[in-house]
Amino acid sequence: MSAKKAAIIGGGVIGGGWAARFLLNGWDVSVFDPDPEAERKIAEVLANARASLPALSDVPMPAEGRLRFAGTLTEAVEGAAYIQESVSERLDLKHRVFAQIQQASHGIPVGSSTSGFKPSELQQGAADPSVIFVAHPFNPVYLLPLAEVVPSAKSDPKVIENAKEILREIGMFPLHVRKEIDAHIADRFLEAVWREALWLVKDGIATTEEIDEAIRMGFGLRWGQMGLFETYRIAGGEAGMKHFLEQFGPCLTWPWTKLMDVPEFNDELVELIAGQSDAQSGAHSIRELERIRDSNLIGFLRALKDRNWGAGRVLLDHDKRRREGAAAAAADPGGMPLKMAEMQVLPGWIDYNGHMTESRYLFAASETSDAFLRLIGADIDYVAGGHSYYTAETHVMHLGEARLGDRLTGTLQVLAADEKRLHVFIRIVRGDETVASLEQMLLHVDMKAGRTCPAAAGVLSRLLPIAAAHAALPRPEAAGRHVGLRSKA
Amino acid sequence: MSAKKAAIIGGGVIGGGWAARFLLNGWDVSVFDPDPEAERKIAEVLANARASLPALSDVPMPAEGRLRFAGTLTEAVEGAAYIQESVSERLDLKHRVFAQIQQASHGIPVGSSTSGFKPSELQQGAADPSVIFVAHPFNPVYLLPLAEVVPSAKSDPKVIENAKEILREIGMFPLHVRKEIDAHIADRFLEAVWREALWLVKDGIATTEEIDEAIRMGFGLRWGQMGLFETYRIAGGEAGMKHFLEQFGPCLTWPWTKLMDVPEFNDELVELIAGQSDAQSGAHSIRELERIRDSNLIGFLRALKDRNWGAGRVLLDHDKRRREGAAAAAADPGGMPLKMAEMQVLPGWIDYNGHMTESRYLFAASETSDAFLRLIGADIDYVAGGHSYYTAETHVMHLGEARLGDRLTGTLQVLAADEKRLHVFIRIVRGDETVASLEQMLLHVDMKAGRTCPAAAGVLSRLLPIAAAHAALPRPEAAGRHVGLRSKA
Repeated sequence: MSAKKAAIIGGGVIGGGWAARFLLNGWDVSVFDPDPEAERKIAEVLANARASLPALSDVPMPAEGRLRFAGTLTEAVEGAAYIQESVSERLDLKHRVFAQIQQASHGIPVGSSTSGFKPSELQQGAADPSVIFVAHPFNPVYLLPLAEVVPSAKSDPKVIENAKEILREIGMFPLHVRKEIDAHIADRFLEAVWREALWLVKDGIATTEEIDEAIRMGFGLRWGQMGLFETYRIAGGEAGMKHFLEQFGPCLTWPWTKLMDVPEFNDELVELIAGQSDAQSGAHSIRELERIRDSNLIGFLRALKDRNWGAGRVLLDHDKRRREGAAAAAADPGGMPLKMAEMQVLPGWIDYNGHMTESRYLFAASETSDAFLRLIGADIDYVAGGHSYYTAETHVMHLGEARLGDRLTGTLQVLAADEKRLHVFIRIVRGDETVASLEQMLLHVDMKAGRTCPAAAGVLSRLLPIAAAHAALPRPEAAGRHVGLRSKA
Repeated sequence: MSAKKAAIIGGGVIGGGWAARFLLNGWDVSVFDPDPEAERKIAEVLANARASLPALSDVPMPAEGRLRFAGTLTEAVEGAAYIQESVSERLDLKHRVFAQIQQASHGIPVGSSTSGFKPSELQQGAADPSVIFVAHPFNPVYLLPLAEVVPSAKSDPKVIENAKEILREIGMFPLHVRKEIDAHIADRFLEAVWREALWLVKDGIATTEEIDEAIRMGFGLRWGQMGLFETYRIAGGEAGMKHFLEQFGPCLTWPWTKLMDVPEFNDELVELIAGQSDAQSGAHSIRELERIRDSNLIGFLRALKDRNWGAGRVLLDHDKRRREGAAAAAADPGGMPLKMAEMQVLPGWIDYNGHMTESRYLFAASETSDAFLRLIGADIDYVAGGHSYYTAETHVMHLGEARLGDRLTGTLQVLAADEKRLHVFIRIVRGDETVASLEQMLLHVDMKAGRTCPAAAGVLSRLLPIAAAHAALPRPEAAGRHVGLRSKA
């Protein structure tokens, strides 16, 4: 294997999230953290990441990289193409870590997860300040795409561009912060909201739960897909952004907030907040809350991916850059149908029998065949060009019962294909058990003319080799079945 | 018609959003706004709402209420059970409006959309202050569930509870703000972020686009499903909220922000922001941005509904409260396929081809067969008793393309039935055209034993006569087909 290696220095929730992103994108990872609990903590983050990140991908994930725990920092960084530091927020500690890193590595980019220090502060006294910069991620690191990349005047622009490319390679959105500033960008907003929220709790205006509802039932939903300015641009309406600004600018002078006042952070306030938080969320363990959060984020991110918008566009770009390799791998089925989709049975997929509702089997099959169509290049751009595959016919066999929380895999076997037609057999699988099989006939159509036509050469050049390889697979028993009463049960 | 009536005073984007929510939930609405453009503006908001709100519902929407534009405020409020004021943010204007409202109505709740005034300020000089309160919504009002309900000490608690119930009836989440405070709760956060963002733009740290990316690629996604405190509770990990607070509390004293400083709101700053906003979003018209935003919000809200979480739980509760009224299955088991379900193709049912997505055909068929099962007595109580019909097999034929807004009927023909088996043919019909047919084999099962068993006598006594009547119907051509490549097209 010629997998690239990333070194992760500091193995908490953030370091673990970085490790998971690199590993699941095929990088080898070496972790250094003297904490005896580091191995357990990283294993927990990695379990969450394995259960969620693949659900965002519509191309097969690469083979997971190899995870090692290094006995020394020097061992960890040896041979690494990228180094990420996520140790505690103490500048002296970070300086010592950078000194050790640079004794063992030369010219390798060193990103820091710091939220509290500027790159020029991190670089103080370094052997090679030009490769040290801020790469500030957001928890959960394995799902949220944002990484604020902050260089200083001493940074080497080539190192920064290279680091941004590596971050894109592991599915992130590097936001280049052009001028260094305390707390970078996002945390300045988080801090502003945090201060205001502490006052509201302290003054008894609202509980932690009421504050959370005020966020997630309203503007939080807006901010997950457009930010502040684009949202307000819409609010300005046809009159435009200037109108909005002129209308709402004056409000700023109203003495609403206590923003520069800091509430005294005494035991009383800590007890108040911790008690309210227990009342609000205590019914769920932290592990449960993590799973709920991750499942919700997958839902949001998949919705944005379906719409080619915001963070969803990052996911589409990430798929695209991995597609060519994945298509080549797919033509070599190794005696197996293609694994095209990973899903989990959600509460809304369940009918009153407690089983996955029928239409969700077809939904699971659509996820599977859509991923296959993207793999062969019949993707959203292809459809925008006026061509698509339409499903003409489907035969569904219900063979088992999927239940809440089940993890399902959608596999696809090409039964036959020609220029215009694509005959596939999809299995919805839980572990070793096929819970449903779906046989489908798809027709390639000219959408404007409203009739079938041959697929583009680029699509056929990917499809036909897969069809030829799949001809060697055993034909499914259920293929060609029809629905009917045959004999008395 | 005995529809309830809401009066909407002030018909801009916010008033229009309120009107749309009431209308689509079956209320009659009377709007008063002297602006000659009001009718056009409300029509635009209503068009957006019609194209999006129904996509969140899994229960048929009630017949849309009747929209009228009143010539006078008095005419608008006549007979109204709820009055919502959304006029400009000028206290003297609001006081005049309330005075006119209370000359024409007695004891009717009057909610104000104000973000800038406290309820005690609104109530000053009112004939009946006890019914005037804040009901502060968030744009787009027809999709975002939050309404901050703020009473003052003079408010009648019964009026407030009644208003909250009305807001739930139209699918909203009334957040009862227990102590009145400038800007209520959510806008205090929005203002804090807005100030910080203006400084970042003014100081050239970040553009409007960079700020929006910093929000929507990271914490914005978190806040759409958990708020601030629940997110941080997770960040605290097993050590809990106290650990988190102790770790991050001290950061508050760092002099990061310029939060109480207000940037001078001069032409230069307005030009800077408006120019950056054009560069960021100018490729889309405001109408396009509205549609993109609404589509994204539908995606988020449906994802949360699937997971029974946050705003999704509000949608599920809203469905539940309307289900009883909507369930009305009347059928004539004569010599015709039974019309079992009426549906409309919703925006969320559409794939990127612009057609109804495959799995929705099966959803439509499930609606049809579920209604049939209820008709023969195999309803939810029957299932609770341990017996049910499971679908063993389905064959789908796609014969046409259903498109956004199409009204579809699901018909069911019994092909064969015995004690344990039910073989049906379902047609999804638009006008005279069958857009899909679905042949299904259902098996009657003892759910505990996990095997087939005869249906209860009460069910068979309804089913078998229908099967006998349907034996006289022509057998559908597509029945008994299987999926396959037969000849070159």
